[in-house]
Amino acid sequence: MNAEIIAVGSELLLGQIVNTNARFLSRQLADLGINVYFHTVVGDNPDRLKNAMEIARERAELIIFTGGLGPTKDDLTKDTIAGQLGKRLVLDEEAMKSIELYFEKTNRIMTENNRKQALVIEGSTVLKNDHGMAPGMFLATEDNKYMLLPGPPSEMEPMFLKYGQAAIAGLSGNQAKIESRVLRFFGIGEAALESEIEDLIDQQSNPTIAPLAGDGEVTLRLTARDDVHGTAQALIDSMEAKIMDRVGEHFYGYDETSLVIELSKLLKSQNLTLSAAESLTGGMFQQDLTSVPGASSLFKGGIVCYSNEAKMGLVNVNPKTIEEFGAVSRECAEELAINAAAITNSDIGISFTGAAGPDSLEGHPAGTVFIGVHIKGQPVHVEKLSLSGSRDAIRKRSVKFGFQIIINRLSGTRK
Amino acid sequence: MNAEIIAVGSELLLGQIVNTNARFLSRQLADLGINVYFHTVVGDNPDRLKNAMEIARERAELIIFTGGLGPTKDDLTKDTIAGQLGKRLVLDEEAMKSIELYFEKTNRIMTENNRKQALVIEGSTVLKNDHGMAPGMFLATEDNKYMLLPGPPSEMEPMFLKYGQAAIAGLSGNQAKIESRVLRFFGIGEAALESEIEDLIDQQSNPTIAPLAGDGEVTLRLTARDDVHGTAQALIDSMEAKIMDRVGEHFYGYDETSLVIELSKLLKSQNLTLSAAESLTGGMFQQDLTSVPGASSLFKGGIVCYSNEAKMGLVNVNPKTIEEFGAVSRECAEELAINAAAITNSDIGISFTGAAGPDSLEGHPAGTVFIGVHIKGQPVHVEKLSLSGSRDAIRKRSVKFGFQIIINRLSGTRK
Repeated sequence: MNAEIIAVGSELLLGQIVNTNARFLSRQLADLGINVYFHTVVGDNPDRLKNAMEIARERAELIIFTGGLGPTKDDLTKDTIAGQLGKRLVLDEEAMKSIELYFEKTNRIMTENNRKQALVIEGSTVLKNDHGMAPGMFLATEDNKYMLLPGPPSEMEPMFLKYGQAAIAGLSGNQAKIESRVLRFFGIGEAALESEIEDLIDQQSNPTIAPLAGDGEVTLRLTARDDVHGTAQALIDSMEAKIMDRVGEHFYGYDETSLVIELSKLLKSQNLTLSAAESLTGGMFQQDLTSVPGASSLFKGGIVCYSNEAKMGLVNVNPKTIEEFGAVSRECAEELAINAAAITNSDIGISFTGAAGPDSLEGHPAGTVFIGVHIKGQPVHVEKLSLSGSRDAIRKRSVKFGFQIIINRLSGTRK
Repeated sequence: MNAEIIAVGSELLLGQIVNTNARFLSRQLADLGINVYFHTVVGDNPDRLKNAMEIARERAELIIFTGGLGPTKDDLTKDTIAGQLGKRLVLDEEAMKSIELYFEKTNRIMTENNRKQALVIEGSTVLKNDHGMAPGMFLATEDNKYMLLPGPPSEMEPMFLKYGQAAIAGLSGNQAKIESRVLRFFGIGEAALESEIEDLIDQQSNPTIAPLAGDGEVTLRLTARDDVHGTAQALIDSMEAKIMDRVGEHFYGYDETSLVIELSKLLKSQNLTLSAAESLTGGMFQQDLTSVPGASSLFKGGIVCYSNEAKMGLVNVNPKTIEEFGAVSRECAEELAINAAAITNSDIGISFTGAAGPDSLEGHPAGTVFIGVHIKGQPVHVEKLSLSGSRDAIRKRSVKFGFQIIINRLSGTRK
């Protein structure tokens, strides 16, 4: 089956927002084994929407519309589609109830035009909106399948995952159960990772393996269908095992997680506290650590020691160390890590010192980074990195390396 | 004139990347007074690209293609378009030279397929690529105008701004000089700002006023053409004056700037140093401050005092203060700001304490924020905020309020 995604909204044509809905849906449909051949964006204009719809009917079996389901005059998606299909709009009682409930919850008065949101195309399956008011719809005609979804990603994405996906999975050729799993890697480039598993990528059609790089991380999305060789889960498991044999040391988590979340889990499970002394990263490590709710149980506080004055004054680095080896040095990183733990009475201390760029520092080229890690009862450990990229990229990747170094040292399983 | 933007690339249909090129070009065309009626995304497939092109020829005067100009087999945009228009591809000597030069510069061997990038559609105006190899093209036929641009934004955007814009501005009705200016505001919502200047937005066609909200900030993009009433610059100046009369106290900068950049400029010009004690924001303020190269001249270091233990131990907050008023209090914010400056020997100290959520803290609902600012020689100043939104949004907006409070107190001109 092939599909077209039509986004309705003049704000897209004015460049006020980016069409991230098309990206989200394209990924989801790829996982369902559906080929997306076209994306179209059209404004809040009935004639041009009709034009886009008629073109899509000729070239796509499944047509997914996003946007234009709201209460205002501009919201004309379902009216237009119903018109083209010669169908009426009927009131959906359940949708009406949840709209009224929504206004009660938010203590707002419901204006009459909000009732319009409870109208659905006759004969369509209503897709519940758990995060807003306008319901979605799924409608199958002789020639095409139509899905109407709301525009705001915060409403559209959960609606599709919870209700839309099921409606589509039921369609021709997609009866088989589909499972998907994301493996997350850090510390290996996309090209390097792909070349390690190139043969697996080339051979496999079930599961499919889709690499994606971003923020210095690489993910592999494994998607499988039940087939004669086993269930989707089993097929994914065995493929994961093959991949782990080759690049397992760079793996850090599954699906929607992150290095900081994995580290937080580890620290909580081992009942450890952590502190930091940040020069290079200027507080980015501690900010990431405290972005996770409940961080207070594992993080008391730390220092941003941007200047040498602060390294000596706030973190008690020996002036001789800076004199002799410089602030960008293994020795300085060691002292910073040890003292960060000491002055906050924490189990673990981590430090970041280096040259973020664009200029070199103390004769070290931009991208020279020393990360010190002191874990109570262990000898202090320092890693030197040579990173490339912008100032921001160097700082971000340093922080992620910091998370990974601690994760790997706390979890014996991986080096 | 109306336009359609066609992005060519299967990676878009697989959801691997978002079509940010369409957004960029839509904004640019809006500034040129050209209406964009459709965006289309099509894969690296000649038949479907022909289909998309034929549809666009019927409904758009100007058709802009992005992507598919590279050296690989997948790159078939110009071949396909030339074919449909019955035109040949010819070698552009200048493009060939710059491709050879590019390989020299990067010390790489040029493979034969790279020559393909120097082929252009006969009769087209070549748009130079100053940031890559594949040149762009502009071609006017009887019925349509065609522009071909490379896919990577780092090549496409400068090419359009430097060469593409001029080619289009020369078209019907767009001879007039066009100027654009962005006014940046913080501390006022989009709806509130729009209602303040609603009449200006409704009345004006030259300059146009385009509001855009994001990251808790609002920008107004003023775009004008030379006309009988004055030059584009003069028209923008007088509109800016009208807007400033109404919402000037929330204005902080022009075009591509940010609160942290404006604050850094102010601190440098007044030769002041700044330190911070962050609880709520966990280091985010200091990380933003150090994201600007050269921060070391105005920032020595600071503290992340997430726990009460750290507030007392690292920032010398009086235990009685926390006992009596709590950590989330005006009194604690005051002491943190004063002591942050003192222990780092800085001219200015700022502090952040509050409840980031999702849970309430010390009986304060999530979003309760105290920001303390101590400027040498001035009485300490504390602002209490009640913010809404996610934990991340509350922290980000608190940091921006912190920047703005210092900016406003250092620059007498605004309250």
